[in-house]
Amino acid sequence: MTFTGLSAFPLTPLVDDAVDEDGVATLVRRLSAAGVDSITALGSTGGYAYLTRQERATVARLAVQHAGSTPVFVGIGALRTSQVLAHAEDAQRAGAAGLLLAPMTYQPLTADDVFTLFRTVVENSSVPVIVYDNPGTTHFTFGLDLYARIAELPGIASIKIPGVPADLAEAREHVARIRAVVPERVTIGVSGDAAAATGLAAGCEAWYSVIGGTLPELALRITRAARTGDHRAALAESERLTPLWEAFATLGGSLRVTAAIAEQRGLVRRSCLPLPILGLDDAERAHVARLVDALGLDS
Amino acid sequence: MTFTGLSAFPLTPLVDDAVDEDGVATLVRRLSAAGVDSITALGSTGGYAYLTRQERATVARLAVQHAGSTPVFVGIGALRTSQVLAHAEDAQRAGAAGLLLAPMTYQPLTADDVFTLFRTVVENSSVPVIVYDNPGTTHFTFGLDLYARIAELPGIASIKIPGVPADLAEAREHVARIRAVVPERVTIGVSGDAAAATGLAAGCEAWYSVIGGTLPELALRITRAARTGDHRAALAESERLTPLWEAFATLGGSLRVTAAIAEQRGLVRRSCLPLPILGLDDAERAHVARLVDALGLDS
Repeated sequence: MTFTGLSAFPLTPLVDDAVDEDGVATLVRRLSAAGVDSITALGSTGGYAYLTRQERATVARLAVQHAGSTPVFVGIGALRTSQVLAHAEDAQRAGAAGLLLAPMTYQPLTADDVFTLFRTVVENSSVPVIVYDNPGTTHFTFGLDLYARIAELPGIASIKIPGVPADLAEAREHVARIRAVVPERVTIGVSGDAAAATGLAAGCEAWYSVIGGTLPELALRITRAARTGDHRAALAESERLTPLWEAFATLGGSLRVTAAIAEQRGLVRRSCLPLPILGLDDAERAHVARLVDALGLDS
Repeated sequence: MTFTGLSAFPLTPLVDDAVDEDGVATLVRRLSAAGVDSITALGSTGGYAYLTRQERATVARLAVQHAGSTPVFVGIGALRTSQVLAHAEDAQRAGAAGLLLAPMTYQPLTADDVFTLFRTVVENSSVPVIVYDNPGTTHFTFGLDLYARIAELPGIASIKIPGVPADLAEAREHVARIRAVVPERVTIGVSGDAAAATGLAAGCEAWYSVIGGTLPELALRITRAARTGDHRAALAESERLTPLWEAFATLGGSLRVTAAIAEQRGLVRRSCLPLPILGLDDAERAHVARLVDALGLDS
Protein backbone atom coordinates (compact mmCIF):
# COMPACT_ATOMS: atom_id res chain seq x y z
CA MET A 1 0.00 0.00 0.00
CA THR A 2 3.07 2.24 -0.08
CA PHE A 3 2.29 3.70 -3.46
CA THR A 4 -1.26 4.81 -2.68
CA GLY A 5 -2.89 7.81 -1.02
CA LEU A 6 -1.29 11.23 -0.77
CA SER A 7 2.33 11.59 -1.75
CA ALA A 8 3.37 15.12 -0.83
CA PHE A 9 6.07 16.86 -2.86
CA PRO A 10 8.02 19.38 -0.77
CA LEU A 11 9.98 22.24 -2.28
CA THR A 12 13.76 22.20 -1.98
CA PRO A 13 14.26 25.80 -0.83
CA LEU A 14 17.50 27.57 -1.69
CA VAL A 15 19.19 30.42 0.15
CA ASP A 16 21.93 32.24 -1.76
CA ASP A 17 22.01 29.47 -4.34
CA ALA A 18 22.64 26.73 -1.76
CA VAL A 19 20.19 24.19 -0.35
CA ASP A 20 18.46 25.61 2.74
CA GLU A 21 18.90 22.51 4.88
CA ASP A 22 16.81 23.89 7.75
CA GLY A 23 14.06 24.70 5.27
CA VAL A 24 14.10 21.15 3.91
CA ALA A 25 13.92 19.72 7.42
CA THR A 26 11.04 22.04 8.37
CA LEU A 27 8.99 21.14 5.32
CA VAL A 28 9.53 17.41 5.68
CA ARG A 29 8.73 17.36 9.41
CA ARG A 30 5.45 19.20 8.75
CA LEU A 31 4.44 16.62 6.17
CA SER A 32 5.22 13.71 8.41
CA ALA A 33 3.35 15.32 11.32
CA ALA A 34 0.33 15.98 9.10
CA GLY A 35 0.14 12.28 8.29
CA VAL A 36 0.66 12.20 4.54
CA ASP A 37 1.01 8.68 3.14
CA SER A 38 4.40 9.36 1.60
CA ILE A 39 6.80 12.18 0.89
CA THR A 40 8.44 12.56 -2.50
CA ALA A 41 11.64 14.55 -2.14
CA LEU A 42 13.27 15.91 -5.28
CA GLY A 43 10.19 15.80 -7.45
CA SER A 44 9.74 18.56 -9.99
CA THR A 45 8.48 20.65 -7.06
CA GLY A 46 11.67 19.78 -5.24
CA GLY A 47 13.69 21.14 -8.16
CA TYR A 48 15.66 17.96 -8.72
CA ALA A 49 16.64 18.94 -12.23
CA TYR A 50 18.47 22.04 -10.99
CA LEU A 51 20.54 20.44 -8.25
CA THR A 52 23.96 18.83 -8.27
CA ARG A 53 24.51 15.21 -7.33
CA GLN A 54 25.85 16.25 -3.96
CA GLU A 55 22.95 18.60 -3.25
CA ARG A 56 20.52 15.87 -4.18
CA ALA A 57 22.22 13.34 -1.91
CA THR A 58 21.99 15.86 0.94
CA VAL A 59 18.28 16.50 0.34
CA ALA A 60 17.53 12.76 0.17
CA ARG A 61 19.37 12.17 3.43
CA LEU A 62 17.63 15.08 5.18
CA ALA A 63 14.22 13.98 3.93
CA VAL A 64 14.58 10.43 5.23
CA GLN A 65 16.05 11.72 8.50
CA HIS A 66 13.12 14.05 9.20
CA ALA A 67 10.26 11.97 7.79
CA GLY A 68 9.90 9.71 10.80
CA SER A 69 8.03 6.60 9.77
CA THR A 70 6.61 8.18 6.59
CA PRO A 71 8.06 6.51 3.48
CA VAL A 72 10.20 8.81 1.36
CA PHE A 73 10.42 8.55 -2.40
CA VAL A 74 13.28 10.33 -4.16
CA GLY A 75 13.45 11.79 -7.67
CA ILE A 76 16.46 10.48 -9.59
CA GLY A 77 15.92 11.91 -13.09
CA ALA A 78 18.76 13.38 -15.14
CA LEU A 79 19.59 13.84 -18.78
CA ARG A 80 22.20 11.08 -18.85
CA THR A 81 21.66 7.47 -17.84
CA SER A 82 24.88 7.27 -15.84
CA GLN A 83 23.77 10.28 -13.80
CA VAL A 84 20.38 8.67 -13.16
CA LEU A 85 22.14 5.55 -11.87
CA ALA A 86 24.35 7.65 -9.59
CA HIS A 87 21.29 9.42 -8.17
CA ALA A 88 19.54 6.07 -7.69
CA GLU A 89 22.52 4.80 -5.73
CA ASP A 90 22.59 7.90 -3.52
CA ALA A 91 18.83 7.76 -2.92
CA GLN A 92 18.98 4.11 -1.89
CA ARG A 93 21.90 4.81 0.40
CA ALA A 94 19.82 7.59 2.01
CA GLY A 95 17.02 5.13 2.69
CA ALA A 96 14.52 5.93 -0.04
CA ALA A 97 11.45 3.66 -0.14
CA GLY A 98 10.99 4.35 -3.85
CA LEU A 99 12.64 6.08 -6.79
CA LEU A 100 10.78 8.55 -9.01
CA LEU A 101 12.09 8.69 -12.57
CA ALA A 102 11.07 11.13 -15.29
CA PRO A 103 12.71 10.83 -18.71
CA MET A 104 14.29 14.28 -18.83
CA THR A 105 15.08 15.42 -22.34
CA TYR A 106 17.25 17.88 -24.17
CA GLN A 107 17.38 15.97 -27.42
CA PRO A 108 13.96 14.37 -27.94
CA LEU A 109 13.93 10.72 -26.89
CA THR A 110 12.39 7.72 -28.61
CA ALA A 111 10.21 5.12 -26.89
CA ASP A 112 13.12 2.67 -27.11
CA ASP A 113 15.47 5.15 -25.46
CA VAL A 114 13.04 5.61 -22.56
CA PHE A 115 12.22 1.91 -22.19
CA THR A 116 15.93 1.07 -22.08
CA LEU A 117 16.50 3.80 -19.49
CA PHE A 118 13.84 2.35 -17.19
CA ARG A 119 15.08 -1.21 -17.74
CA THR A 120 18.62 -0.17 -16.85
CA VAL A 121 17.44 1.56 -13.68
CA VAL A 122 15.29 -1.30 -12.39
CA GLU A 123 18.06 -3.79 -13.15
CA ASN A 124 20.41 -1.72 -11.04
CA SER A 125 18.10 -0.82 -8.13
CA SER A 126 16.71 -2.75 -5.21
CA VAL A 127 13.81 -0.41 -4.34
CA PRO A 128 10.64 0.12 -6.40
CA VAL A 129 10.49 2.69 -9.18
CA ILE A 130 7.71 5.16 -10.00
CA VAL A 131 7.31 6.04 -13.67
CA TYR A 132 7.05 9.82 -13.81
CA ASP A 133 5.11 11.02 -16.85
CA ASN A 134 5.36 14.82 -16.90
CA PRO A 135 5.23 16.07 -20.48
CA GLY A 136 5.01 19.69 -19.31
CA THR A 137 8.61 19.54 -18.13
CA THR A 138 10.13 16.61 -20.04
CA HIS A 139 8.32 17.14 -23.35
CA PHE A 140 8.26 13.39 -23.68
CA THR A 141 4.93 11.66 -24.30
CA PHE A 142 4.55 8.06 -23.13
CA GLY A 143 1.38 6.60 -24.59
CA LEU A 144 -0.31 3.36 -23.56
CA ASP A 145 2.07 1.02 -25.36
CA LEU A 146 5.09 2.37 -23.55
CA TYR A 147 3.27 2.40 -20.18
CA ALA A 148 2.56 -1.29 -20.77
CA ARG A 149 6.14 -2.17 -21.79
CA ILE A 150 7.68 -0.37 -18.83
CA ALA A 151 5.08 -1.50 -16.26
CA GLU A 152 5.93 -5.14 -17.09
CA LEU A 153 9.43 -4.60 -15.73
CA PRO A 154 9.86 -6.08 -12.26
CA GLY A 155 10.43 -3.25 -9.81
CA ILE A 156 7.98 -0.81 -11.33
CA ALA A 157 5.54 0.13 -8.55
CA SER A 158 3.47 3.02 -9.84
CA ILE A 159 2.83 5.38 -12.72
CA LYS A 160 2.46 9.08 -12.03
CA ILE A 161 0.19 10.31 -14.79
CA PRO A 162 0.04 13.98 -15.75
CA GLY A 163 -3.66 14.55 -15.17
CA VAL A 164 -7.04 13.34 -16.31
CA PRO A 165 -9.85 14.92 -18.36
CA ALA A 166 -11.99 17.34 -16.32
CA ASP A 167 -15.15 15.40 -17.17
CA LEU A 168 -15.51 12.52 -14.72
CA ALA A 169 -16.86 10.01 -17.24
CA GLU A 170 -14.00 10.79 -19.61
CA ALA A 171 -11.55 10.60 -16.71
CA ARG A 172 -12.87 7.14 -15.80
CA GLU A 173 -12.37 5.94 -19.38
CA HIS A 174 -8.89 7.43 -19.43
CA VAL A 175 -7.80 5.72 -16.21
CA ALA A 176 -9.49 2.45 -17.24
CA ARG A 177 -7.50 2.42 -20.48
CA ILE A 178 -4.24 2.71 -18.52
CA ARG A 179 -5.40 0.18 -15.91
CA ALA A 180 -6.12 -2.32 -18.67
CA VAL A 181 -2.53 -2.39 -19.88
CA VAL A 182 -0.56 -2.35 -16.62
CA PRO A 183 -0.25 -5.16 -14.04
CA GLU A 184 -2.44 -5.00 -10.93
CA ARG A 185 0.60 -4.46 -8.68
CA VAL A 186 1.34 -1.13 -10.41
CA THR A 187 -0.65 1.74 -8.89
CA ILE A 188 -1.79 4.72 -10.93
CA GLY A 189 -1.31 8.11 -9.33
CA VAL A 190 -2.70 11.37 -10.60
CA SER A 191 -0.79 14.63 -10.67
CA GLY A 192 -1.77 18.10 -11.73
CA ASP A 193 -3.41 19.19 -8.48
CA ALA A 194 -6.50 20.64 -10.17
CA ALA A 195 -7.25 17.19 -11.59
CA ALA A 196 -6.60 15.25 -8.39
CA ALA A 197 -10.12 14.84 -7.00
CA THR A 198 -11.37 13.84 -10.44
CA GLY A 199 -8.46 11.47 -10.86
CA LEU A 200 -9.12 9.79 -7.51
CA ALA A 201 -12.82 9.51 -8.35
CA ALA A 202 -11.85 8.00 -11.67
CA GLY A 203 -9.87 5.19 -10.09
CA CYS A 204 -6.39 6.55 -9.40
CA GLU A 205 -5.00 5.06 -6.20
CA ALA A 206 -2.58 7.86 -5.42
CA TRP A 207 -2.23 11.62 -5.72
CA TYR A 208 1.29 12.89 -6.35
CA SER A 209 0.73 16.41 -5.10
CA VAL A 210 2.53 19.72 -5.45
CA ILE A 211 0.30 21.68 -3.05
CA GLY A 212 0.34 18.76 -0.61
CA GLY A 213 4.04 19.41 -0.06
CA THR A 214 3.29 22.85 1.37
CA LEU A 215 -0.36 22.64 2.52
CA PRO A 216 -0.71 18.98 3.51
CA GLU A 217 -4.03 19.41 5.41
CA LEU A 218 -5.72 20.74 2.31
CA ALA A 219 -4.50 17.82 0.23
CA LEU A 220 -5.31 15.29 2.96
CA ARG A 221 -8.94 16.50 3.18
CA ILE A 222 -9.41 15.75 -0.51
CA THR A 223 -7.46 12.50 -0.44
CA ARG A 224 -9.17 11.10 2.66
CA ALA A 225 -12.63 11.91 1.40
CA ALA A 226 -11.86 10.26 -1.91
CA ARG A 227 -10.18 7.21 -0.40
CA THR A 228 -13.20 6.55 1.81
CA GLY A 229 -15.47 6.74 -1.21
CA ASP A 230 -16.90 10.21 -0.54
CA HIS A 231 -16.00 11.54 -3.96
CA ARG A 232 -18.75 14.11 -3.77
CA ALA A 233 -16.98 15.81 -0.83
CA ALA A 234 -13.56 15.55 -2.47
CA LEU A 235 -14.81 17.03 -5.71
CA ALA A 236 -16.64 19.80 -3.86
CA GLU A 237 -13.50 20.77 -1.94
CA SER A 238 -11.47 20.76 -5.14
CA GLU A 239 -14.16 22.88 -6.81
CA ARG A 240 -13.98 25.36 -3.94
CA LEU A 241 -10.24 25.70 -4.59
CA THR A 242 -10.75 26.65 -8.24
CA PRO A 243 -9.14 30.09 -7.74
CA LEU A 244 -5.97 28.35 -6.55
CA TRP A 245 -5.90 26.03 -9.56
CA GLU A 246 -6.52 29.04 -11.79
CA ALA A 247 -3.57 30.82 -10.21
CA PHE A 248 -1.41 27.76 -11.00
CA ALA A 249 -2.49 28.05 -14.63
CA THR A 250 -2.17 31.81 -15.05
CA LEU A 251 0.88 32.63 -12.88
CA GLY A 252 3.39 30.37 -14.59
CA GLY A 253 2.72 27.05 -12.92
CA SER A 254 2.16 25.37 -9.58
CA LEU A 255 5.83 25.61 -8.57
CA ARG A 256 5.98 29.41 -8.57
CA VAL A 257 2.66 29.78 -6.76
CA THR A 258 3.46 27.12 -4.16
CA ALA A 259 6.87 28.68 -3.52
CA ALA A 260 5.19 32.06 -2.97
CA ILE A 261 2.76 30.50 -0.49
CA ALA A 262 5.58 28.78 1.40
CA GLU A 263 7.54 32.05 1.47
CA GLN A 264 4.53 34.02 2.69
CA ARG A 265 3.93 31.54 5.50
CA GLY A 266 7.56 31.86 6.54
CA LEU A 267 8.24 28.18 5.92
CA VAL A 268 11.11 29.08 3.60
CA ARG A 269 13.05 32.27 2.83
CA ARG A 270 12.06 34.62 0.02
CA SER A 271 13.31 33.72 -3.48
CA CYS A 272 13.65 30.06 -2.64
CA LEU A 273 13.58 28.91 -6.28
CA PRO A 274 16.72 28.29 -8.33
CA LEU A 275 17.64 31.10 -10.74
CA PRO A 276 16.91 31.76 -13.57
CA ILE A 277 13.39 31.15 -12.17
CA LEU A 278 12.59 34.56 -10.70
CA GLY A 279 9.36 33.49 -9.04
CA LEU A 280 6.29 35.67 -8.77
CA ASP A 281 6.53 39.44 -8.89
CA ASP A 282 5.03 41.66 -6.18
CA ALA A 283 1.64 42.07 -7.82
CA GLU A 284 1.35 38.32 -8.35
CA ARG A 285 2.38 37.66 -4.75
CA ALA A 286 -0.30 40.07 -3.53
CA HIS A 287 -2.86 38.19 -5.62
CA VAL A 288 -1.76 34.87 -4.11
CA ALA A 289 -1.88 36.31 -0.57
CA ARG A 290 -5.48 37.51 -1.13
CA LEU A 291 -6.40 34.13 -2.49
CA VAL A 292 -4.86 32.26 0.45
CA ASP A 293 -6.88 34.53 2.72
CA ALA A 294 -10.16 34.20 0.83
CA LEU A 295 -9.90 30.41 0.61
CA GLY A 296 -8.85 30.03 4.25
CA LEU A 297 -5.66 28.21 3.25
CA ASP A 298 -3.91 29.61 6.30
CA SER A 299 -5.94 27.53 8.68
CA MET B 1 33.77 39.40 -38.59
CA THR B 2 34.16 36.62 -36.03
CA PHE B 3 30.45 35.85 -35.84
CA THR B 4 29.90 35.37 -39.58
CA GLY B 5 30.32 32.57 -42.10
CA LEU B 6 30.35 28.91 -41.18
CA SER B 7 30.47 27.96 -37.54
CA ALA B 8 30.91 24.20 -37.38
CA PHE B 9 29.49 22.25 -34.44
CA PRO B 10 31.52 19.10 -33.70
CA LEU B 11 30.14 16.15 -31.79
CA THR B 12 31.56 15.38 -28.37
CA PRO B 13 32.04 11.63 -28.80
CA LEU B 14 31.88 9.37 -25.76
CA VAL B 15 33.52 6.02 -25.21
CA ASP B 16 32.20 3.96 -22.29
CA ASP B 17 30.37 7.00 -20.95
CA ALA B 18 33.53 9.15 -20.84
CA VAL B 19 34.62 11.91 -23.22
CA ASP B 20 36.68 10.45 -26.07
CA GLU B 21 39.44 13.04 -25.92
CA ASP B 22 41.20 11.72 -29.03
CA GLY B 23 37.89 11.85 -30.87
CA VAL B 24 37.35 15.48 -29.87
CA ALA B 25 40.87 16.40 -31.02
CA THR B 26 40.40 14.59 -34.34
CA LEU B 27 37.11 16.32 -35.11
CA VAL B 28 38.39 19.79 -34.18
CA ARG B 29 41.62 19.46 -36.15
CA ARG B 30 39.63 18.42 -39.26
CA LEU B 31 37.45 21.50 -38.97
CA SER B 32 40.37 23.83 -38.57
CA ALA B 33 42.18 22.23 -41.51
CA ALA B 34 39.08 22.54 -43.68
CA GLY B 35 39.01 26.28 -43.04
CA VAL B 36 35.70 26.80 -41.28
CA ASP B 37 35.20 30.33 -39.97
CA SER B 38 34.67 29.21 -36.40
CA ILE B 39 34.16 26.08 -34.34
CA THR B 40 31.42 25.87 -31.73
CA ALA B 41 32.32 23.26 -29.16
CA LEU B 42 29.62 22.05 -26.79
CA GLY B 43 26.70 23.11 -28.91
CA SER B 44 23.63 20.90 -28.90
CA THR B 45 25.54 18.70 -31.36
CA GLY B 46 28.38 18.64 -28.86
CA GLY B 47 26.00 17.33 -26.21
CA TYR B 48 26.73 20.10 -23.71
CA ALA B 49 23.54 19.45 -21.78
CA TYR B 50 24.62 15.89 -20.94
CA LEU B 51 28.14 16.61 -19.70
CA THR B 52 29.49 17.47 -16.26
CA ARG B 53 31.28 20.73 -15.54
CA GLN B 54 34.61 18.97 -15.58
CA GLU B 55 33.90 17.18 -18.86
CA ARG B 56 32.85 20.46 -20.42
CA ALA B 57 36.00 22.22 -19.22
CA THR B 58 38.06 19.42 -20.76
CA VAL B 59 36.25 19.64 -24.10
CA ALA B 60 36.62 23.44 -24.19
CA ARG B 61 40.35 23.18 -23.50
CA LEU B 62 40.85 20.45 -26.13
CA ALA B 63 38.88 22.40 -28.72
CA VAL B 64 40.94 25.57 -28.31
CA GLN B 65 44.14 23.56 -28.22
CA HIS B 66 43.45 21.78 -31.52
CA ALA B 67 41.68 24.59 -33.41
CA GLY B 68 44.86 26.41 -34.41
CA SER B 69 43.93 29.96 -35.37
CA THR B 70 40.24 29.18 -35.84
CA PRO B 71 38.11 30.94 -33.21
CA VAL B 72 36.31 28.59 -30.83
CA PHE B 73 32.93 29.35 -29.33
CA VAL B 74 31.80 27.29 -26.36
CA GLY B 75 28.29 26.37 -25.24
CA ILE B 76 27.69 27.29 -21.60
CA GLY B 77 23.97 26.53 -21.13
CA ALA B 78 22.62 24.82 -18.03
CA LEU B 79 19.38 24.72 -16.10
CA ARG B 80 20.67 26.89 -13.23
CA THR B 81 22.18 30.35 -13.55
CA SER B 82 25.07 29.59 -11.19
CA GLN B 83 26.00 26.59 -13.34
CA VAL B 84 25.91 28.76 -16.47
CA LEU B 85 28.29 31.22 -14.82
CA ALA B 86 30.64 28.42 -13.84
CA HIS B 87 30.69 27.12 -17.41
CA ALA B 88 31.29 30.66 -18.70
CA GLU B 89 34.28 30.99 -16.42
CA ASP B 90 35.71 27.65 -17.54
CA ALA B 91 35.16 28.48 -21.21
CA GLN B 92 36.91 31.82 -20.89
CA ARG B 93 39.79 30.22 -19.04
CA ALA B 94 40.09 27.71 -21.91
CA GLY B 95 40.37 30.57 -24.40
CA ALA B 96 36.91 30.71 -25.93
CA ALA B 97 36.34 33.54 -28.42
CA GLY B 98 32.62 33.52 -27.70
CA LEU B 99 30.02 31.91 -25.45
CA LEU B 100 26.89 30.23 -26.79
CA LEU B 101 23.94 30.34 -24.41
CA ALA B 102 20.60 28.59 -24.79
CA PRO B 103 17.97 29.03 -22.08
CA MET B 104 17.64 25.40 -21.08
CA THR B 105 14.38 24.64 -19.32
CA TYR B 106 12.83 22.09 -17.06
CA GLN B 107 10.23 24.37 -15.57
CA PRO B 108 9.03 26.69 -18.35
CA LEU B 109 10.77 30.09 -18.19
CA THR B 110 9.30 33.56 -18.62
CA ALA B 111 10.77 36.28 -20.83
CA ASP B 112 11.96 38.08 -17.69
CA ASP B 113 13.69 34.95 -16.42
CA VAL B 114 15.56 34.59 -19.71
CA PHE B 115 16.40 38.29 -20.05
CA THR B 116 17.81 38.33 -16.51
CA LEU B 117 19.84 35.20 -17.25
CA PHE B 118 21.46 36.81 -20.30
CA ARG B 119 22.07 40.08 -18.43
CA THR B 120 23.74 38.21 -15.58
CA VAL B 121 25.98 36.32 -18.00
CA VAL B 122 27.12 39.34 -20.03
CA GLU B 123 27.75 41.29 -16.82
CA ASN B 124 30.02 38.50 -15.64
CA SER B 125 31.83 37.68 -18.89
CA SER B 126 34.52 39.39 -20.90
CA VAL B 127 33.97 37.62 -24.22
CA PRO B 128 30.99 38.04 -26.56
CA VAL B 129 27.85 35.99 -26.15
CA ILE B 130 25.74 34.30 -28.83
CA VAL B 131 22.02 34.05 -28.09
CA TYR B 132 21.04 30.47 -28.84
CA ASP B 133 17.37 30.13 -29.81
CA ASN B 134 16.63 26.42 -30.11
CA PRO B 135 12.99 25.76 -29.22
CA GLY B 136 13.27 22.13 -30.36
CA THR B 137 15.52 21.37 -27.39
CA THR B 138 14.79 24.16 -24.89
CA HIS B 139 11.04 24.49 -25.54
CA PHE B 140 11.48 28.20 -24.93
CA THR B 141 10.25 30.64 -27.59
CA PHE B 142 11.96 34.03 -27.80
CA GLY B 143 9.93 36.30 -30.03
CA LEU B 144 11.03 39.64 -31.48
CA ASP B 145 10.56 41.67 -28.31
CA LEU B 146 12.89 39.49 -26.30
CA TYR B 147 15.46 39.35 -29.13
CA ALA B 148 15.45 43.15 -29.06
CA ARG B 149 15.78 43.42 -25.26
CA ILE B 150 18.63 40.93 -25.08
CA ALA B 151 20.45 42.17 -28.19
CA GLU B 152 20.69 45.64 -26.60
CA LEU B 153 22.90 44.21 -23.87
CA PRO B 154 26.56 45.05 -24.41
CA GLY B 155 28.44 41.84 -25.12
CA ILE B 156 25.78 40.21 -27.25
CA ALA B 157 27.44 39.38 -30.58
CA SER B 158 25.03 37.21 -32.51
CA ILE B 159 21.68 35.46 -32.49
CA LYS B 160 21.46 31.85 -33.60
CA ILE B 161 17.94 31.52 -34.97
CA PRO B 162 16.24 28.16 -35.32
CA GLY B 163 15.55 28.26 -39.04
CA VAL B 164 13.70 30.27 -41.63
CA PRO B 165 10.63 29.61 -43.78
CA ALA B 166 11.38 27.42 -46.81
CA ASP B 167 10.02 30.07 -49.19
CA LEU B 168 12.78 32.57 -49.95
CA ALA B 169 10.54 35.63 -49.98
CA GLU B 170 9.05 34.67 -46.63
CA ALA B 171 12.51 33.92 -45.29
CA ARG B 172 13.68 37.42 -46.32
CA GLU B 173 10.76 39.00 -44.49
CA HIS B 174 11.43 36.83 -41.44
CA VAL B 175 15.12 37.80 -41.26
CA ALA B 176 14.32 41.46 -42.01
CA ARG B 177 11.92 41.57 -39.06
CA ILE B 178 14.67 40.33 -36.72
CA ARG B 179 17.27 42.64 -38.34
CA ALA B 180 14.98 45.61 -37.72
CA VAL B 181 14.96 45.11 -33.95
CA VAL B 182 18.58 44.19 -33.21
CA PRO B 183 21.65 46.47 -33.38
CA GLU B 184 23.85 46.32 -36.48
CA ARG B 185 26.76 44.86 -34.47
CA VAL B 186 24.70 41.73 -33.70
CA THR B 187 24.92 39.15 -36.48
CA ILE B 188 22.07 36.79 -37.29
CA GLY B 189 23.02 33.18 -37.88
CA VAL B 190 20.74 30.48 -39.21
CA SER B 191 20.58 26.95 -37.90
CA GLY B 192 18.60 23.95 -38.95
CA ASP B 193 20.90 22.74 -41.74
CA ALA B 194 18.10 22.21 -44.25
CA ALA B 195 17.25 25.92 -43.98
CA ALA B 196 20.82 27.20 -44.16
CA ALA B 197 21.14 28.12 -47.85
CA THR B 198 17.76 29.82 -47.71
CA GLY B 199 18.73 31.61 -44.50
CA LEU B 200 22.00 32.87 -45.99
CA ALA B 201 20.15 34.02 -49.13
CA ALA B 202 17.64 35.76 -46.87
CA GLY B 203 20.30 37.87 -45.15
CA CYS B 204 21.72 35.72 -42.36
CA GLU B 205 25.43 36.42 -41.91
CA ALA B 206 26.30 33.10 -40.32
CA TRP B 207 25.37 29.43 -40.44
CA TYR B 208 25.59 27.56 -37.14
CA SER B 209 25.88 24.09 -38.60
CA VAL B 210 25.42 20.57 -37.30
CA ILE B 211 26.57 18.79 -40.46
CA GLY B 212 29.47 21.25 -40.82
CA GLY B 213 30.97 19.79 -37.65
CA THR B 214 31.37 16.41 -39.33
CA LEU B 215 31.36 17.17 -43.08
CA PRO B 216 32.93 20.64 -43.21
CA GLU B 217 33.62 20.66 -46.97
CA LEU B 218 29.95 20.15 -47.72
CA ALA B 219 28.97 23.04 -45.48
CA LEU B 220 31.77 25.25 -46.76
CA ARG B 221 30.64 24.80 -50.39
CA ILE B 222 27.23 26.15 -49.49
CA THR B 223 28.52 28.89 -47.21
CA ARG B 224 31.17 30.15 -49.65
CA ALA B 225 28.78 30.23 -52.58
CA ALA B 226 26.27 32.16 -50.50
CA ARG B 227 28.81 34.54 -49.00
CA THR B 228 30.09 35.48 -52.48
CA GLY B 229 26.54 36.18 -53.59
CA ASP B 230 26.04 33.02 -55.63
CA HIS B 231 22.85 32.05 -53.85
CA ARG B 232 21.67 30.09 -56.84
CA ALA B 233 24.60 27.68 -56.44
CA ALA B 234 24.18 27.48 -52.66
CA LEU B 235 20.47 26.76 -52.96
CA ALA B 236 21.08 24.18 -55.70
CA GLU B 237 23.62 22.33 -53.56
CA SER B 238 21.26 22.38 -50.59
CA GLU B 239 18.47 21.12 -52.85
CA ARG B 240 20.69 18.27 -54.01
CA LEU B 241 21.16 17.28 -50.35
CA THR B 242 17.41 16.97 -49.75
CA PRO B 243 17.64 13.24 -48.92
CA LEU B 244 20.07 14.10 -46.10
CA TRP B 245 17.76 16.78 -44.68
CA GLU B 246 14.88 14.32 -44.96
CA ALA B 247 16.89 11.76 -43.01
CA PHE B 248 17.42 14.40 -40.30
CA ALA B 249 13.66 14.86 -40.11
CA THR B 250 12.60 11.21 -40.23
CA LEU B 251 15.37 9.49 -38.23
CA GLY B 252 14.99 11.42 -34.99
CA GLY B 253 17.03 14.53 -35.69
CA SER B 254 20.32 15.78 -37.08
CA LEU B 255 22.32 14.64 -34.05
CA ARG B 256 21.58 10.94 -34.45
CA VAL B 257 22.19 11.01 -38.21
CA THR B 258 25.39 13.03 -37.94
CA ALA B 259 26.70 10.74 -35.21
CA ALA B 260 26.01 7.73 -37.44
CA ILE B 261 27.92 9.36 -40.32
CA ALA B 262 30.88 10.18 -38.06
CA GLU B 263 30.87 6.62 -36.74
CA GLN B 264 30.70 5.12 -40.26
CA ARG B 265 33.64 7.25 -41.38
CA GLY B 266 35.66 6.04 -38.41
CA LEU B 267 36.03 9.55 -37.02
CA VAL B 268 34.55 8.43 -33.71
CA ARG B 269 33.77 5.09 -32.10
CA ARG B 270 30.37 3.40 -32.42
CA SER B 271 27.67 4.53 -29.96
CA CYS B 272 29.29 7.89 -29.39
CA LEU B 273 26.13 9.55 -28.07
CA PRO B 274 25.29 9.80 -24.37
CA LEU B 275 22.75 7.25 -23.13
CA PRO B 276 19.75 7.18 -22.95
CA ILE B 277 20.11 8.28 -26.60
CA LEU B 278 20.55 4.92 -28.34
CA GLY B 279 21.35 6.37 -31.74
CA LEU B 280 20.22 4.85 -35.01
CA ASP B 281 19.43 1.17 -35.31
CA ASP B 282 21.05 -1.07 -37.92
CA ALA B 283 18.40 -0.52 -40.60
CA GLU B 284 18.59 3.24 -40.14
CA ARG B 285 22.37 3.14 -40.29
CA ALA B 286 22.22 1.19 -43.54
CA HIS B 287 19.87 3.82 -44.96
CA VAL B 288 22.29 6.57 -43.95
CA ALA B 289 25.24 4.71 -45.45
CA ARG B 290 23.41 4.35 -48.79
CA LEU B 291 22.53 8.02 -48.71
CA VAL B 292 26.13 9.09 -47.99
CA ASP B 293 27.16 6.98 -50.95
CA ALA B 294 24.48 8.24 -53.32
CA LEU B 295 25.13 11.89 -52.47
CA GLY B 296 28.90 11.52 -52.66
CA LEU B 297 29.33 12.77 -49.10
CA ASP B 298 32.41 10.59 -48.68
CA SER B 299 34.46 12.65 -51.06
